[in-house]
Amino acid sequence: MLKTKLTRLSVSDVRFPTSLEQHGSDAMHTDPDYSVAYVVIETDAGLKGYGLTFTLGKGTEIVVCAVEALSTFVVGKCLDEIVNDFRAFYRVLTSDGQMRWIGPEKGVIQLATAAVLNAVWDLWARAEGKPLWKLLVDMDPKKLISCIDFRYITDALTEHEALDILLKGQEGKRQREEQMLKVGYPAYTTSCAWIGYPDQQLKQLCAEALRDGWTRFKVKVGVDLQDDVRRCRLIRHIIGPSNTLMIDANQRWDVGEAITWVTGLAEFRPLWIEEPTSPDDILGHAAISKALAPLGIGVASGEQCHNRVMFKQFLQASALQFVQIDSCRLGSVNENLAVLLMACKFQVPVCPHAGGVGLCELVQHLILFDYISVSTSLHNRMCEYVDHLHEHFKSPVVIQDACYMPPKDPGYSTEMLEESVSRYQYPQGEAWQGHTQS
Amino acid sequence: MLKTKLTRLSVSDVRFPTSLEQHGSDAMHTDPDYSVAYVVIETDAGLKGYGLTFTLGKGTEIVVCAVEALSTFVVGKCLDEIVNDFRAFYRVLTSDGQMRWIGPEKGVIQLATAAVLNAVWDLWARAEGKPLWKLLVDMDPKKLISCIDFRYITDALTEHEALDILLKGQEGKRQREEQMLKVGYPAYTTSCAWIGYPDQQLKQLCAEALRDGWTRFKVKVGVDLQDDVRRCRLIRHIIGPSNTLMIDANQRWDVGEAITWVTGLAEFRPLWIEEPTSPDDILGHAAISKALAPLGIGVASGEQCHNRVMFKQFLQASALQFVQIDSCRLGSVNENLAVLLMACKFQVPVCPHAGGVGLCELVQHLILFDYISVSTSLHNRMCEYVDHLHEHFKSPVVIQDACYMPPKDPGYSTEMLEESVSRYQYPQGEAWQGHTQS
Repeated sequence: MLKTKLTRLSVSDVRFPTSLEQHGSDAMHTDPDYSVAYVVIETDAGLKGYGLTFTLGKGTEIVVCAVEALSTFVVGKCLDEIVNDFRAFYRVLTSDGQMRWIGPEKGVIQLATAAVLNAVWDLWARAEGKPLWKLLVDMDPKKLISCIDFRYITDALTEHEALDILLKGQEGKRQREEQMLKVGYPAYTTSCAWIGYPDQQLKQLCAEALRDGWTRFKVKVGVDLQDDVRRCRLIRHIIGPSNTLMIDANQRWDVGEAITWVTGLAEFRPLWIEEPTSPDDILGHAAISKALAPLGIGVASGEQCHNRVMFKQFLQASALQFVQIDSCRLGSVNENLAVLLMACKFQVPVCPHAGGVGLCELVQHLILFDYISVSTSLHNRMCEYVDHLHEHFKSPVVIQDACYMPPKDPGYSTEMLEESVSRYQYPQGEAWQGHTQS
Repeated sequence: MLKTKLTRLSVSDVRFPTSLEQHGSDAMHTDPDYSVAYVVIETDAGLKGYGLTFTLGKGTEIVVCAVEALSTFVVGKCLDEIVNDFRAFYRVLTSDGQMRWIGPEKGVIQLATAAVLNAVWDLWARAEGKPLWKLLVDMDPKKLISCIDFRYITDALTEHEALDILLKGQEGKRQREEQMLKVGYPAYTTSCAWIGYPDQQLKQLCAEALRDGWTRFKVKVGVDLQDDVRRCRLIRHIIGPSNTLMIDANQRWDVGEAITWVTGLAEFRPLWIEEPTSPDDILGHAAISKALAPLGIGVASGEQCHNRVMFKQFLQASALQFVQIDSCRLGSVNENLAVLLMACKFQVPVCPHAGGVGLCELVQHLILFDYISVSTSLHNRMCEYVDHLHEHFKSPVVIQDACYMPPKDPGYSTEMLEESVSRYQYPQGEAWQGHTQS
């Protein structure tokens, strides 16, 4: 199956009108319409690969345009040509002498790279008849290393060090895999406390989540301090003193403001403050980390951290205590592998960003691989979960007792239902008739 | 004229087939086709504003698509509504709750922001009947401050500190303006030593440049060390010991490699090494700066530094000894003002990036303002110049004795000849008939 030729790449702009009910609302993104640029790669063997990147509605057409530009590098290639030197192919997409100017490796073009390569990884896993996490777990460490572009990160992690980490991870791998298949990977929920939800809805959702076995809860903060105090008090009261609370400001503050604000919420004992300031501000995150350490509050970020060079510096500067990789912001599995290995070297736990459309479906594969083959630890680790839009996927996530159960279908869990893609296509899909986007 | 309403925004994909002759070639961009996303804003008063952002060919259509997405925020607004609260309008473009996800403030969407706002600034300067540099020099410092978004930079520069810098800059302003009108702003040339040029061409171009009064020369390096040694020796020999040499690697190296390579070129006494590594690597640039300081070689970067938050950190970390602002990468004049003021506070000279298409035309306005109203110094300062594609502009730069002479026409020198726009439009323009882009 690896000899198959990639004959066609198509991309769709698929938007869900989530803003109508304030799902996903936070301090900076008050009315998101959760969306994807959705990629389908066809092959001459009849096998297909599906990929996506997540967006918030407006601007998805720009990412679609970027995917179309990248498709010229993909169509006509054989799958084995790509995966036998995946590092080189990654460079073809990210380092084209003309196209890299409009990145490089950031923003629209990096999101498009993620969508395209997610489809390639899905195709590869399907060709091997394995779910992606299992493809990674079974892969020879040297082959894994050959998928990673080490350019610009060798001062933090050399190929040799990366290989050492993977070789160490072979020990006890089978037991950890069995453990995951049995009990799954621990998750936390963000579904209870979006910023646009009224108190009554918060209460009800938290109570329901507790009944379903959830023990870790994230609350959106950052619009109004007194409002945040009230909401955090309410939630801490409902979940009790021993469950875990995290807070998330979605980049709302400047550095000094972040420190003051979070200090004002310290009494509710959040494990972390997520995205306190600009996602580009490594030194700012380092200053905030230093100031909040005496309060026992860590700093988490990553959902808008656009590449391995940025993550490298966040780690070098001790600017993060929790690394939040994103399956659709970084350059697909290739770049996520680099970040997982750097996080392991710097001994910082990875707690992936998920939610959106399909982010849970994808990132569960990466964090399963992280536990089984890289970090080998569950200490201070958990994966975000949002109970949202899973019904549009062919192999939706399975949550049991607040844990992600390892997917079993071949591929990267990226395939959407044809009916959903057609119904929510923007602007021509049925769901958008009679609406226009705000 | 400020009451005029912006009635229409159109954008064109204009590409020049420069790759045919290796103009603009460097270690990472081996075959650029210098291009622009070119914006025209029409008003109900008949006045027009012109703006652009620079690209290298492929992918320009993505930037065009992003400009179209941003145009909805512009059309229908009155000019005075925009400029009376320019900070708020800047935020409208950069912080839309849905669109910021595909940035924020980086990559394609930031380039598009630059193109659109460059057109607005051009329109404003035309409405006031002044060249942009003069509009800035004459503007009340408080009004200038009101154009800047201080979000995420207050830990490095407060509004109050920025105002202080501008108030201090009022002293001696008239003399500096007269000086500029008389002798112009010092420039350096990059036209002599693109990486794709053979030695004979280098020699001839350097000799010609010396005859024309140039004293500062930049050489592209980074593909092969022995080749670089030969080229630097050749050029140092031609220009003599007292003229200035800079070298530019265009992001070719990892951190350790950069230090070793540049040490190998130290004997040719370059003033700076430009873009030694990833443009995102603040800590990497800091490490390189520290290692090269004993050799008397500074580090320069900025042409791919995407926003004020990144420049803030480069300054905080002492990672740059020369700040290279770009008129089309940062969010137009608004964000460039923030960077000029931060550089002044940190006492680091600004030496703008130019060349490309129109970058010289635009950035001369910013550096004139920097000298007259902000830095008030010419020490270790100069603006890049490339003798290239100026013939397509209505008010091309004027160079006299290797200095930029202040533009006199109203506006931001952004207007291109209609004939050029039509001839080089991609793919339908006459210049592209019979060619396809590589």
